[in-house]
Amino acid sequence: MTYCVGMRLDRGLVFMSDTRTNAGVDNISTFRKMHTWEVQGDRTIVLMSAGNLATTQAVVSLLEERSKAPGDRNPSILEAPSMFQIAREVAATLREVIGEHAEGGMRADSAFNATLILGGQVKGSAPRLFLIYPEGNFIEAGADTPFFQIGETKYGRPILVRAFDPKMSFEAAVKLLMVSFDSTIKANLSVGLPLDLQLYEADSFKLGLSRRVAPDDAYYQTISNGWGEALKLAFDSLPDIVL
Amino acid sequence: MTYCVGMRLDRGLVFMSDTRTNAGVDNISTFRKMHTWEVQGDRTIVLMSAGNLATTQAVVSLLEERSKAPGDRNPSILEAPSMFQIAREVAATLREVIGEHAEGGMRADSAFNATLILGGQVKGSAPRLFLIYPEGNFIEAGADTPFFQIGETKYGRPILVRAFDPKMSFEAAVKLLMVSFDSTIKANLSVGLPLDLQLYEADSFKLGLSRRVAPDDAYYQTISNGWGEALKLAFDSLPDIVL
Repeated sequence: MTYCVGMRLDRGLVFMSDTRTNAGVDNISTFRKMHTWEVQGDRTIVLMSAGNLATTQAVVSLLEERSKAPGDRNPSILEAPSMFQIAREVAATLREVIGEHAEGGMRADSAFNATLILGGQVKGSAPRLFLIYPEGNFIEAGADTPFFQIGETKYGRPILVRAFDPKMSFEAAVKLLMVSFDSTIKANLSVGLPLDLQLYEADSFKLGLSRRVAPDDAYYQTISNGWGEALKLAFDSLPDIVL
Repeated sequence: MTYCVGMRLDRGLVFMSDTRTNAGVDNISTFRKMHTWEVQGDRTIVLMSAGNLATTQAVVSLLEERSKAPGDRNPSILEAPSMFQIAREVAATLREVIGEHAEGGMRADSAFNATLILGGQVKGSAPRLFLIYPEGNFIEAGADTPFFQIGETKYGRPILVRAFDPKMSFEAAVKLLMVSFDSTIKANLSVGLPLDLQLYEADSFKLGLSRRVAPDDAYYQTISNGWGEALKLAFDSLPDIVL
C-alpha cells in the first residue's frame, strides 16, 4: 500500500508521500512515489502515485519520454497550456497503461490500477490540485475539499479533517502531514519511512523545498514522540463521564 | 458498515457498537448490533456483530432459541462450561448460517459474511474476550492485544493505540471509546449514532451499566466538540519545523 497527501493552501501546494511498496507482507521495497517536473518561470508539476508500481512507473516513464520528444503525437506536459490540459494528458497516459495490460488478456482484479495526485501551476492561472482515477477521469480540489489523500487514507484522516486550514503556514502544514503520516505508520505495516516532502510556493514557478524524511530525522522523531504525549494530555483534558 | 470495539480492562470488559446499517448509501437503517445474555451469579455474555445483517440476526436468533430448548443437540451458551466453549458454539453457529447460504448456491462475494466480538465471564475463570471470524475460528485478547475492533476500524484506531491502558477506569475507557467513535463518525457515513454502551465489572456475574448514546447525548456532545479543540491545542503544542 501507500500513503500520499496533497494540500492546496493559500500560500501554495504541499505534497508528502511514503516510499514503501509491498507485494504481500514479505516482499517489501522502497520506491520513490513522488515525481516532479519544472520549467523555471513557466511551470511546476508534482505527481504522486498509489497502486500498482509497474503501472505508475510506466506512466512516469511515458510522460518523461514524451516531454523529450517534441514530435510525439501526445502533447508534452511541459508544453500543455494549462494544469487542466496536463491533468488530461496524465490521465490519458494512466488509462493507456492500464488498458494495455487489460487488453493483453491479463487479469489481476484491480491489481494493474493506480490512482494519482497531480498538482502544480502553469503561468497564467493559479496553482491547481487534481485527483486522477484509474478510469482516466479526475476531480479538482476546491475550497470545500482542499486536500486529497490516496492509498491507506483512513488512519491519518481524522487529524486532517480537524486541523487542516487553507490559511496555515507551510511549517504548520508540514507538521500536520507528519502527524497524519505518523498515525498511519504506527497502525499499518504497508506504509513506511522514509517520506518525501515537496513544497511549492504559489506564483514562484519553481520547485520549493524538497526533503527526504528518514527514520532518524530529528523533527520526525520530535513529532512522533511528542504527538503521543500531546494526545494523552488532550485526552486527559476532556471530562470523564459520570457513570 | 459498522464500528464495534470490545476492551479487556483490569476492572472488567467494556463494549461499544454503533447502530447504522446500510446497503449502498441510500438504504440506511438503525439496528442494534449488541446482544447480551446473563444468568445472574453464574455468567454474563456480550456479543457484537459486523457484516451481513441477515447473517448476524440469524446467528443471534439461533443462539436465543437454543438457549430456550434444553433438548437441542447443540449446547446452549447458557449452559456451556466456559467462555471458550461459548466461543466455539457461537463460532459454529456463525459458520453454519454462512454455510447455509453458500451451499444454497447463492453467491454474493463476501456479502453473507460477518465478524463477531464476544466477551463475558463464566463462574470459575476470568473475563475473556474473543474475535470470531466468518470461517468459524477465533482469537482471544491477551495482554499484548487487549482490545478488538470490527467493521470500519481504521479511523478510530490511532487514538486507541495511543491512549489505551488496561489499568484505566471505566470512565476513562468510555471517554476513549467516545473519541474513537466520534473520529470514525466524522470521517465515514456508514457509521452512525446512536451508540450502545455496555460495561461488565469483573467477577460481578451480572451485566453492568448499559446505555444508549443518542445524537443529543450531553456527554457525547461534550466529547465531540471538546476533542476538536483539544486536538487543535495538542497540535499547536508541537514545535513547527524549521524550513
